[in-house]
Amino acid sequence: MPSNKLKNDTLIRALLRQPTEYTPVWIMRQAGRYLPEYNATRKRAGSFLKLAKSPDLATEVTLQPLARFPLDAAILFSDILTVPDAMGLGLYFVEGEGPKFERPLRDEWEVRNLFVPDPHEHLRYVIDAVSQIRRALDGRVPLIGFSGSPYTLACYMVEGGASADFRLIKTMLYARPDLLHHILSVNAQAVTAYLNAQIEAGAQAVMLFDTWGGSLSDAAYREFSLSYMQQVVSGLITEHDGQRIPRIVFTKGGGAWLEDIAAIGADAVGLDWTVNIGAARGRIGHVAALQGNADPSVLFGSSERIQHEVAAVLASYGHGPGHVFNLGHGISQHTDPERLGVLIDAVHDLSRPYH
Amino acid sequence: MPSNKLKNDTLIRALLRQPTEYTPVWIMRQAGRYLPEYNATRKRAGSFLKLAKSPDLATEVTLQPLARFPLDAAILFSDILTVPDAMGLGLYFVEGEGPKFERPLRDEWEVRNLFVPDPHEHLRYVIDAVSQIRRALDGRVPLIGFSGSPYTLACYMVEGGASADFRLIKTMLYARPDLLHHILSVNAQAVTAYLNAQIEAGAQAVMLFDTWGGSLSDAAYREFSLSYMQQVVSGLITEHDGQRIPRIVFTKGGGAWLEDIAAIGADAVGLDWTVNIGAARGRIGHVAALQGNADPSVLFGSSERIQHEVAAVLASYGHGPGHVFNLGHGISQHTDPERLGVLIDAVHDLSRPYH
Repeated sequence: MPSNKLKNDTLIRALLRQPTEYTPVWIMRQAGRYLPEYNATRKRAGSFLKLAKSPDLATEVTLQPLARFPLDAAILFSDILTVPDAMGLGLYFVEGEGPKFERPLRDEWEVRNLFVPDPHEHLRYVIDAVSQIRRALDGRVPLIGFSGSPYTLACYMVEGGASADFRLIKTMLYARPDLLHHILSVNAQAVTAYLNAQIEAGAQAVMLFDTWGGSLSDAAYREFSLSYMQQVVSGLITEHDGQRIPRIVFTKGGGAWLEDIAAIGADAVGLDWTVNIGAARGRIGHVAALQGNADPSVLFGSSERIQHEVAAVLASYGHGPGHVFNLGHGISQHTDPERLGVLIDAVHDLSRPYH
Repeated sequence: MPSNKLKNDTLIRALLRQPTEYTPVWIMRQAGRYLPEYNATRKRAGSFLKLAKSPDLATEVTLQPLARFPLDAAILFSDILTVPDAMGLGLYFVEGEGPKFERPLRDEWEVRNLFVPDPHEHLRYVIDAVSQIRRALDGRVPLIGFSGSPYTLACYMVEGGASADFRLIKTMLYARPDLLHHILSVNAQAVTAYLNAQIEAGAQAVMLFDTWGGSLSDAAYREFSLSYMQQVVSGLITEHDGQRIPRIVFTKGGGAWLEDIAAIGADAVGLDWTVNIGAARGRIGHVAALQGNADPSVLFGSSERIQHEVAAVLASYGHGPGHVFNLGHGISQHTDPERLGVLIDAVHDLSRPYH
């Protein structure tokens, strides 16, 4: 077991709304295709899935952005769809089309046959990667574990891949809500067990990515996405190895529902770039920390423009603890890594007066 | 000039927040691919663009849903991208990929050369269609005219088609905002002239479709989308032929900005299906009428499920005037037309107790 003493615990303190010296920053998809060293490792692995399924290579790419930038956290390199893959749906990737499943849920018997995978058996490669990354980090910064949310997993499980209109899962939602509730119930149990196994293996914070909850109506979001995230959050280990384990929830496109998201008991709420973070703080800052939320596209602008955007987000959040800087969505593969360095330095430099 | 007396002016009164006997309903893309008779006409035309550019055929398909359903409005059959096509960008369609431009804006000189098309010259086919539809309607229900918003037009003009990440226009926004402001300024003038020409030809209400404003950050939305919609709204004819011409603005994904949208002076604000319409009424119902907002996917459910959804939207809005029922997005091509009939009847039947 690695030491639980962190050399830099700024992220953990910010997520728990405790005072920090500056605003910590990490970046969604910080280990990704915008980095030439990532692309080299991926090429060596042969495919994205081979990379994600090798604890050695996952450790290597998880650490790559930390070698370049003074980031305040590492995030496990993995995919949001490992859980349904472990359920036997057969995850695969088609270049340029994103993730797909060989055996999507099309018949009632397939839904009824779903099972909760044992993370130590079916997702061993992830748990091993978490342990290995923790050892490699040696307490430098905390490691964030993650999973897709129950509803987001269900979208891919029913559609069989990304979808523009979510016709299949929405048809199920309106015509056979009982089947969808069954899938979501299994997913919630599976995600809970998976995240708890990550925590026991060394993840020091965990995040639920609800990529597609924002495609639901107001009422359907509460019934089919938020309530199952609440089940997961309630079932998570809150302390491990003597340390609090902060939990972050992020619904892309969920800006309208921040009060409800904050009420499910997570420590922090992720914000996409469409949200005004100052207004969000007014709405839920007394309940949860906020993570976000610069537009990832600002990294296509000049250094001055990037610094201006960072300053605007920091000023909008204002003084005091409880802010983790991030982009409002994953970093684009077309980003020049040097631009990200400008952003991270700006966060560290410009945030000190607010603390 | 056709008579300006409407046999059914429920839509106009609702948009102006005047009392009505029931909640009027029309459907975005009500003349579209879910209707077999539409597909037959389109096949006869040879292509979507030939259909849209023929006033005779545009009139035919505009009237088709009214022959089936007791809708409270007709909406001009056209495309949101007619204006940039008239600017010479060369609109074309690839089956399954949506609209594209042959000559997207890639160089500064192309941006600087943009001009405001004269609607009576370069968009004659639309203006003729409006006149012809008005004659064919003979006062049965009002005719709604429309255009894409300045920012939404710019997205297609810069990207050259639909985009998942809007990388080109966002790069311009952050790296060369002066160029984007120039495009938007020309677009705002062009859209204003275009909608005013539609009004003069007989459109009895007009709507701005801001399909992509919701992809912007909070600050960028105000600067690059909303302010140009405000320019358009301020420049529109408010009365024609002795009748008020209500103006509707709709930003998909704009639920966070409703107060600001309502403040630009339009008569009604469109809501997508993610918004709670009762909460939206509390926020802006004293300023503008609301249009929306059932999830289009509910039409994949049973009759009972559809009636339940209609009842929920009506109850959420509550008693009194100022509500126009619609879906929160265009109707899916995969919809069974009979399901839409169920929805429309439910709106008419279930809304009477609220008036």
